[in-house]
Amino acid sequence: MKEFMGEDFLLDSEPAKKMFEAAKDMPIFDWHCHLSPKEIYENKKPADIAELWLSGDHYKWRVMRSYGIDERLITGESTGYEKFSAFSKAIPYFVGNPMYHWSHLELQRYFDIYEPLSEKTADKIWKEANEKIEDGGFKPRELITRSNVVCVCTTDDPADTLEYHKLMARDKSFKCRVLPAFRPDKALNVELPTFLPWLQSLEKAVGEKIESFAGLKAALKERIMFFDAMGCRASDQSFSYIPYEPSDDIELELIFSKVLYKKELEKIEVDKYRTALMTFLACEYAEKNWVMELHIGAMRNNNSLMFKKIGPDTGYDSIGDDLIAYRLSRFLDSVSSANKLPKTILFTLNPMYNYVIGAMLGNFQNSDAESKIQFGSAWWFNDNIDGMEKQMKALGNLGCLGKFVGMVTDSRSFLSYPRHEYFRRIMCSLIGNMVEKGLYPPDYDILAETARDISFNNAEKYFGLKLC
Amino acid sequence: MKEFMGEDFLLDSEPAKKMFEAAKDMPIFDWHCHLSPKEIYENKKPADIAELWLSGDHYKWRVMRSYGIDERLITGESTGYEKFSAFSKAIPYFVGNPMYHWSHLELQRYFDIYEPLSEKTADKIWKEANEKIEDGGFKPRELITRSNVVCVCTTDDPADTLEYHKLMARDKSFKCRVLPAFRPDKALNVELPTFLPWLQSLEKAVGEKIESFAGLKAALKERIMFFDAMGCRASDQSFSYIPYEPSDDIELELIFSKVLYKKELEKIEVDKYRTALMTFLACEYAEKNWVMELHIGAMRNNNSLMFKKIGPDTGYDSIGDDLIAYRLSRFLDSVSSANKLPKTILFTLNPMYNYVIGAMLGNFQNSDAESKIQFGSAWWFNDNIDGMEKQMKALGNLGCLGKFVGMVTDSRSFLSYPRHEYFRRIMCSLIGNMVEKGLYPPDYDILAETARDISFNNAEKYFGLKLC
Amino acid sequence: MKEFMGEDFLLDSEPAKKMFEAAKDMPIFDWHCHLSPKEIYENKKPADIAELWLSGDHYKWRVMRSYGIDERLITGESTGYEKFSAFSKAIPYFVGNPMYHWSHLELQRYFDIYEPLSEKTADKIWKEANEKIEDGGFKPRELITRSNVVCVCTTDDPADTLEYHKLMARDKSFKCRVLPAFRPDKALNVELPTFLPWLQSLEKAVGEKIESFAGLKAALKERIMFFDAMGCRASDQSFSYIPYEPSDDIELELIFSKVLYKKELEKIEVDKYRTALMTFLACEYAEKNWVMELHIGAMRNNNSLMFKKIGPDTGYDSIGDDLIAYRLSRFLDSVSSANKLPKTILFTLNPMYNYVIGAMLGNFQNSDAESKIQFGSAWWFNDNIDGMEKQMKALGNLGCLGKFVGMVTDSRSFLSYPRHEYFRRIMCSLIGNMVEKGLYPPDYDILAETARDISFNNAEKYFGLKLC
Repeated sequence: MKEFMGEDFLLDSEPAKKMFEAAKDMPIFDWHCHLSPKEIYENKKPADIAELWLSGDHYKWRVMRSYGIDERLITGESTGYEKFSAFSKAIPYFVGNPMYHWSHLELQRYFDIYEPLSEKTADKIWKEANEKIEDGGFKPRELITRSNVVCVCTTDDPADTLEYHKLMARDKSFKCRVLPAFRPDKALNVELPTFLPWLQSLEKAVGEKIESFAGLKAALKERIMFFDAMGCRASDQSFSYIPYEPSDDIELELIFSKVLYKKELEKIEVDKYRTALMTFLACEYAEKNWVMELHIGAMRNNNSLMFKKIGPDTGYDSIGDDLIAYRLSRFLDSVSSANKLPKTILFTLNPMYNYVIGAMLGNFQNSDAESKIQFGSAWWFNDNIDGMEKQMKALGNLGCLGKFVGMVTDSRSFLSYPRHEYFRRIMCSLIGNMVEKGLYPPDYDILAETARDISFNNAEKYFGLKLC
Repeated sequence: MKEFMGEDFLLDSEPAKKMFEAAKDMPIFDWHCHLSPKEIYENKKPADIAELWLSGDHYKWRVMRSYGIDERLITGESTGYEKFSAFSKAIPYFVGNPMYHWSHLELQRYFDIYEPLSEKTADKIWKEANEKIEDGGFKPRELITRSNVVCVCTTDDPADTLEYHKLMARDKSFKCRVLPAFRPDKALNVELPTFLPWLQSLEKAVGEKIESFAGLKAALKERIMFFDAMGCRASDQSFSYIPYEPSDDIELELIFSKVLYKKELEKIEVDKYRTALMTFLACEYAEKNWVMELHIGAMRNNNSLMFKKIGPDTGYDSIGDDLIAYRLSRFLDSVSSANKLPKTILFTLNPMYNYVIGAMLGNFQNSDAESKIQFGSAWWFNDNIDGMEKQMKALGNLGCLGKFVGMVTDSRSFLSYPRHEYFRRIMCSLIGNMVEKGLYPPDYDILAETARDISFNNAEKYFGLKLC
Repeated sequence: MKEFMGEDFLLDSEPAKKMFEAAKDMPIFDWHCHLSPKEIYENKKPADIAELWLSGDHYKWRVMRSYGIDERLITGESTGYEKFSAFSKAIPYFVGNPMYHWSHLELQRYFDIYEPLSEKTADKIWKEANEKIEDGGFKPRELITRSNVVCVCTTDDPADTLEYHKLMARDKSFKCRVLPAFRPDKALNVELPTFLPWLQSLEKAVGEKIESFAGLKAALKERIMFFDAMGCRASDQSFSYIPYEPSDDIELELIFSKVLYKKELEKIEVDKYRTALMTFLACEYAEKNWVMELHIGAMRNNNSLMFKKIGPDTGYDSIGDDLIAYRLSRFLDSVSSANKLPKTILFTLNPMYNYVIGAMLGNFQNSDAESKIQFGSAWWFNDNIDGMEKQMKALGNLGCLGKFVGMVTDSRSFLSYPRHEYFRRIMCSLIGNMVEKGLYPPDYDILAETARDISFNNAEKYFGLKLC
């Protein structure tokens, strides 16, 4: 029996261990996350492990609710200690849940605590962890530095002033680069009540009235130039489903007028708008040699009661199952036909589409980049051993695993970096076990290169950065 | 090489074996099956193993047809011996089929026969098994008692008089509780020719004419009270797809009038009716603190010729693939928004939706119960090693495996209880192997508790019963 | 650590090794491929390994593009040596890709080269391989003979004259039978610009004008008789999705008139045409006792730019996700209801439908044949270890694995026969490991029989041939 989460955690063969030796000290390039640039800049010390762990992490809230914990002890009016105790009581029942491993990796790596968390050990760990927080090393920038992160790409609205990015760019004391990434969800979600207020904020950002679809495109183009100047290398968009409804300029201006006059759009109009805007954006990204990330399949805010009480991103999102193959193919082809397809990373939240995505890549690969079309790593509900293995197996079978840009945290927590270690162990295990079984030659030059490439080098090259 | 289906069958690590030690003697709570209360009450001795095994089990009929056996030897005019011989000849070719394991588990546990069944051993086993049946212990109640079953929930129509449940409630000699469960399929299937005759049987049961949708609801409410008084703790409904079409009372009464006047409904009207009725029922279940089971994705009666010849439930059902995420979310949310969502178990017949279901749970969990929304165990076509592992892995990754209510037989056979042993071995193996690999701590208190909980305790608590 | 692709490649248990002993020398019946009868007949010696490997294999082109190789070095104006060098440089990065195994199996089995291919070894292997080609044994018929192939079924248009089949039928020097197979894709794709020219070629083949749907059916019937006389045992059709729209003769003649008058069809008309024609064809196949193969789910020609440049079947096809369960059930049932369902092999390109297909089989099994409805082996994007295991597990769990007709190459290359060895190793490993784990008895008579049956005998019997 192997030691619980010991040195060889997840590494079951000699080749896997050797590969992990090569991978483990590689820096981290966190090219897509939801960390707050303000929090990084302000760099405040957390009060206790409850604040660090439980104040903003909807993954943990979700498992606590699954156990049956009262909302008061999750997001409600209770003390940090009460919340920590409730979480500690529940966690032993989450056998097989990645939260179990993430939490213990975080205790091990940041707190040097190796005891399993449970009702019995909760008080001891609460005390020990809080003492260590008191001793220092738990401010955002300290955690980033301790985690060997050399670059973070945040997620920013086109209308954002990027003021904290500017401040940090001037501050040379913090070695990790913090770059913006372009997230035009509010521009795409034309049917939501958030659209017109957002349009005003964009008008403010560009200093001009936006009275047409053409005007919107011009404004976004200006913001793309601004983001690019600020070091942006990537855009990210989230689609519950992939729209594909071609239209023309006249129709789009009519749709846009309806929006300005607050008339409700039909679904097909929303799809036409979104297709046209996304096509425009893709071409602009290609122009800047940015990476386009498409996150497909999140079905959000399923619980109306809780949405009214505590808002979005609180653990009530889920996996959609809308068909994706045809429309995704048509969208990518329409951009590709104009010779404007940027480097693209396709993420699927629904693992049933792993093979659809894995096969889709090959339709648009060319020599613009090594694996120009990437299969985004197993993300969110798939960010677990099974999910990562399935995604890498699909990519290995259908594409070029050796050129994979690797792990994405998509995280809101400064403690989430051990998920890169988790990923690297799983990746080294997957490939190392192939060597162990005689499915790949024991050539440790190429194996170590592959381990380092997938851990860091491929992403650095793909995003066009020189990070160390 | 391990012994064929020996003591450590399916148990490949020490922790798995230790967990199974804790699980194996737990009683069985068979909270959803299709056993006949009449047969349990009448308690007749079977003629031979052909009657026990082959007279009503469409799982076995199906594998026999796959092998190419003539229907005469399956459901036709042939002797039990001929049928048994045909089955015995085919079974060695079903390598990898759960039927192979179920049949041999049944031979081992009930007949003490350890030899693999084949053409060569058929006659010997026929003789030996029938001698044992002659010796006794094979009547329905005896089999239930020998299987350590402490409670059976049957599947009953709302109009059912539950006469056999009444008789058994009075008979104290049989220790196993036999409770009704509410299955309103005929009420929901308004588009079928079975609807109006069923409505008449309901009218008879409540002693009143039903002339409106409101009247139907009142009648069903009355039946729910009756079932509840008879000890019912659960309802079950089967959906080939999940409908979700909101409507209003006026529209529903119009639809109901069309039904009474035998006018054909459009599909959207059927969906509106079914959505409204299901919403009503869910609220009533919540009122009674019943468990609502939703079995999703069976595509039934695919072979018209055979349907005409031998009717429904004869092995011609299949797995549908209709999309479920959006409408299931909307249905659950609409009930949840009224604060009336009962404890709910979601089953998917199509394993491609395992992650959709696993993620759906989290949208509606709260402190009403431990894992209030449950992921129903791998069922029917998934009731095999791969299917169970996939379902438990999905649940483990996305929810709280430790609070899982565990195995469902969904069976029509009194010999099917070793499937609980099969499930328990697979469950202990899955979790035990995590311990073996260092993925979970070797804390045998919590591991044994988990094994016992998933085997029995969780379900007992979830269904609100005190069974031993 | 096991030797890289050594003698026990993919065989991890003693029972697996013993089973492979029984399987490995079985002949190959290549019952569905895209080999060119002309090339087999003409039997030309290839110039070098680049011609053999890279001149026509879109699987290899695809992986080369994934690595980022310029199209000039794939399908463009460059030398064979340049192309071979580019492929050799890329291949080490395809860890986990079946192309890695296929290529090395081909080097081992046909060239006796055991060194892994890479940039370092490229020149040496180029030289050695080309010398061996020079020494002989690499002409199409030689490769077929060396591969122990006893029968090849090509893929032929209904209007084809089958002249090369005729020539080969007369030539007794070549022991392998080369039979035609009926592929009516151009007849089914009524909406494509290829339809009317194809109709003319059919008119030429039957020597009559075709002016009605009835006339088309008569002509196809005549061609089916001709193919049958030429030894055809199978038909194959490819569906991006399964159509099912019943109609009647009058409507079909109207649709056909629109086609003749070059009026565009609506999608529902295309579906009605295709449903009716496919139903007609299925009945005709049943009449001849042919096998009907349905390949479902390819989404073709996704890259318009490259389609214009280098045409179809060049590596820009992909996996579709259209729902299949309902319409496939209705189509099969409509034919079955007329008692005209032929032996049928269902292939799914999208592995998410493995369980839908696996369950579908059972709806139409009967004693017409052993496993009359077959689950086609993991094909194209699934032709890898994971894909084959998943398909065989689904078949094992849901049907009769022992009667599986086994591997299909679907290949365009004379070097692809080691994929049968690959399949056999995976199949023996899957079943052998069950024995190793005590899940199936160590009865080596039945195990060896099963290994031989799935490798060859089942297909020979199913297709109604006597091949050795």
